[in-house]
Amino acid sequence: SSLTFGEYSLVYNMLSFTIASMLAAGLFFILAQHRVAPKYRISLIVSTLVVGIAAYHYFRITGSWADAFMISETGNYVASGKPFNDAYRYVDWLLTVPLLLVELVLVLNLSREKSGPMLTKLVIAATLMIGLGYPGELLGAESMFSERGLWGFLSTIPFIYILWILFGELGKAMEGQPERVRVLFRNIRLLLIFTWGFYPIVYMAPFFGLTGSESIVAIQVGYTIADVLAKAGYGVMIYAIAREKSINEG
Amino acid sequence: SSLTFGEYSLVYNMLSFTIASMLAAGLFFILAQHRVAPKYRISLIVSTLVVGIAAYHYFRITGSWADAFMISETGNYVASGKPFNDAYRYVDWLLTVPLLLVELVLVLNLSREKSGPMLTKLVIAATLMIGLGYPGELLGAESMFSERGLWGFLSTIPFIYILWILFGELGKAMEGQPERVRVLFRNIRLLLIFTWGFYPIVYMAPFFGLTGSESIVAIQVGYTIADVLAKAGYGVMIYAIAREKSINEG
Ligand SMILES: CC1=C(/C=C/C(C)=C/C=C/C(C)=C/C=O)C(C)(C)CCC1
Ligand SMILES: CC1=C(/C=C/C(C)=C/C=C/C(C)=C/C=O)C(C)(C)CCC1
Repeated sequence: SSLTFGEYSLVYNMLSFTIASMLAAGLFFILAQHRVAPKYRISLIVSTLVVGIAAYHYFRITGSWADAFMISETGNYVASGKPFNDAYRYVDWLLTVPLLLVELVLVLNLSREKSGPMLTKLVIAATLMIGLGYPGELLGAESMFSERGLWGFLSTIPFIYILWILFGELGKAMEGQPERVRVLFRNIRLLLIFTWGFYPIVYMAPFFGLTGSESIVAIQVGYTIADVLAKAGYGVMIYAIAREKSINEG
Repeated sequence: SSLTFGEYSLVYNMLSFTIASMLAAGLFFILAQHRVAPKYRISLIVSTLVVGIAAYHYFRITGSWADAFMISETGNYVASGKPFNDAYRYVDWLLTVPLLLVELVLVLNLSREKSGPMLTKLVIAATLMIGLGYPGELLGAESMFSERGLWGFLSTIPFIYILWILFGELGKAMEGQPERVRVLFRNIRLLLIFTWGFYPIVYMAPFFGLTGSESIVAIQVGYTIADVLAKAGYGVMIYAIAREKSINEG
């Protein structure tokens, strides 16, 4: 399948934008350490790891994208013969989703007895979600009722389980917090549902009647936007909560 | 020998996953320095070196892997003519195994009179173990009773010596420690036996009747998993011990 110059460049430039965003976010999380109380610094450390891992993978994705296509005489981009490696995203999620879950559980400030088992369940569910989604990602499809659709459906089961646990706990954590912190928690909950919920929607792109190249572009651009928000945007919000709490607690 | 697309990609993606894990672990060990008491920081420094050296070698291994194969018209990967360089792993071990031994001896908190000579013996044994294993790694084999088997056997002698010393000393170090620290020591002992013990098992892959490409893939995937656990996983456990002790000691 061939891409127009615009399609190829849109993806390429979004990928590069993301590398810059992740690196800048990582630098911010390192430099802003001393602006939050010591007990909240671990959250900033985890944020740094998440965006660092993402920066590495976006470098790789960008390279793979550039290698997978070559410009033809008509000015379009055509497949070079080197396959584009879809796996980088899934490997990235395998590492970053558990870290984001650790971070969220840290922010909830639960007791050790509670957070340990909860984290174990969440990480197992996340691994299943990603592992079951991957085989489907490799397949094109025209409808929900395809092999891609089946893997997507299976992957959605642990996904719903994760959301269900997180929402219950986030709701509880909001009780009894000062107004400004409550607002931040509400925002993080919204960010979480919108960004995490965006991934399965992007996955469904081929079901919406897009052509081959349109659906490749929609998937790359969609996952990229979701990643910037779910990693860098989320980290900035966690920083804001930690900063607010640090000020409140003197 | 030719690899299927899936075999080639599995190894490639595992290698890339490992680069990301090692870099992230290194960033963590650097950023988490201030979370442990000054006297434990040297352990985190050594961990950083270990995963840093590993990240370098995994970049090299990944490059060598990608250069050693090329995609054929049938979609399989075939040898490109450039040999895959097995030596990176052994060079890596030559550097990282002594560092891991230093780290373990540090954590045991022995007297200087005792730790010096012990470390000397351990490092000599480790060098022999790695040096004797390497000639065998270059040879394929169908059975234990082959030249590969012989080198493996010779390499196992210093290996058993190392385990024998470490286990005795780890047992002694556990006595008289608080319960939570004891649990962490027990876990590290388990991690050690399972990860270090995994290397010789991987080495034996060609003896288990795998075909050429199956055994190449098993060896690469096996050593890679062992390395992530023995380096990054081990470093995180050492961090957990150091953090726990720092909190206990105020
Ligand atoms: C439900 C579902 C999926 C969910 C993916 C999610 C929720 C990914 C989240 C990634 C994050 C948060 C990364 C940030 O670092 C897949 C795998 C696309 C497959 C289709 C079904
Ligand atoms: C016994 C034995 C081996 C042992 C290797 C080991 C134990 C390697 C450990 C490496 C580590 C811990 C690296 C981490 O940085 C070889 C050489 C495979 C050859 C076959 C016999």
